[in-house]
Amino acid sequence: MNSNKLYLIPTAIGALDRPSPGVLEIINEIEVFFCERIRTTRRWLRDIQPDYDIDSRTFIEFDKHSNRFPMDLVLEQWKKGRITGLTSEAGSPAIADPGFQIVIKAHQLNIPVLPLSGSNSLILALMGSGFNGNQFTYQGYFPIKPQELKSKIQKILPSIEKGYTQIFIETPYRNIKTMESLIDILPDTISISLAIDLLNTNNTTVTKTVKQWRSSKLPSMHKLPCVFVLGKGN
Amino acid sequence: MNSNKLYLIPTAIGALDRPSPGVLEIINEIEVFFCERIRTTRRWLRDIQPDYDIDSRTFIEFDKHSNRFPMDLVLEQWKKGRITGLTSEAGSPAIADPGFQIVIKAHQLNIPVLPLSGSNSLILALMGSGFNGNQFTYQGYFPIKPQELKSKIQKILPSIEKGYTQIFIETPYRNIKTMESLIDILPDTISISLAIDLLNTNNTTVTKTVKQWRSSKLPSMHKLPCVFVLGKGN
Repeated sequence: MNSNKLYLIPTAIGALDRPSPGVLEIINEIEVFFCERIRTTRRWLRDIQPDYDIDSRTFIEFDKHSNRFPMDLVLEQWKKGRITGLTSEAGSPAIADPGFQIVIKAHQLNIPVLPLSGSNSLILALMGSGFNGNQFTYQGYFPIKPQELKSKIQKILPSIEKGYTQIFIETPYRNIKTMESLIDILPDTISISLAIDLLNTNNTTVTKTVKQWRSSKLPSMHKLPCVFVLGKGN
Repeated sequence: MNSNKLYLIPTAIGALDRPSPGVLEIINEIEVFFCERIRTTRRWLRDIQPDYDIDSRTFIEFDKHSNRFPMDLVLEQWKKGRITGLTSEAGSPAIADPGFQIVIKAHQLNIPVLPLSGSNSLILALMGSGFNGNQFTYQGYFPIKPQELKSKIQKILPSIEKGYTQIFIETPYRNIKTMESLIDILPDTISISLAIDLLNTNNTTVTKTVKQWRSSKLPSMHKLPCVFVLGKGN
């Protein structure tokens, strides 16, 4: 089973996001795509290369109902020696998406796993925050219930004060409510950085202390993808 | 001070690593580079674009002795309205490097901060690991002293078991010794993933449980850049 390969292929997170020439070359070699949704991957392929021969490729989709990739179909492709690629809905595959199921299976079968570079919104937000990137934690989504959000923030506050930057994401329509809660819960000296609509035309990064946020107008962020970064005040 | 911009520009982490066309376009607009070492940034610019007009650019370097960027020179460039770019020695700037000093200053002065996509070895290693990327922590370097390494690992073990993947880097000549220590310290069921020499010709990712590592030969990793990822067994 060693003639084949599994490439991990980042997709676009914004309209300005394009693969590098080397990554594009590899995309042209891929025979089979494992993806979260076929439709998104096909649309992205057409977008980055209008003459890409989509019909000659095989697409195997994550099954939402069973919460699994159809592993028998995946194995079949590897048995045939196919060059395969894993994509996610947006950005880096196998991070905060089910693609890790495919990656771990490839390792178990000694199929070479080759991650390709591209965009990752967490890293872009961390770069743009100006906070310490020597140590950081990605926490996933904020808890929805106000009391759980409060207790989560209080739990991680000592680590922020020790210099661990904390990264969260949020469902876009909840951005403003969550930001208001954070300003309310966090002490004056902690800073909040927002990375809004990354790699789109109007993308913005803003970093302020909670004290400054209390007297500032929030940036346009309603229903826009936003990464929240909490760090030690500057 | 709003006509100027601060772009955050990832540089190459391996010989196969090239910027995307959009990023290359922006690199051509940059008038002033803030960098960790001028020599590395100039060499990288020549490498990605042999006819890049290096002599017409200004380069401002981090001062190792004071552990600061010469902020008066940085401010002078912004006052002149220059388009500026921050680079690191390799990969994403302002993450695990002193570039964050420039980013936070830009935020304080309301200068637009624009992170550009590129390579980040931590994310590539996490993608390639096959571990849960829903929650993870980047810890920086492993402690050097055996007793401190042991106590650090024991401290983070409960969080690994809760599903927080843990990412470390190591000084390349210490890779094998550290790997041997990890195999010795960690319980059988935890997995270790290695991402070796990322984006170079012989780059490898390997994931095994500690139990499997105990009876496996280590991959070629001596003096090669390596990211270590610890996760819940598969």
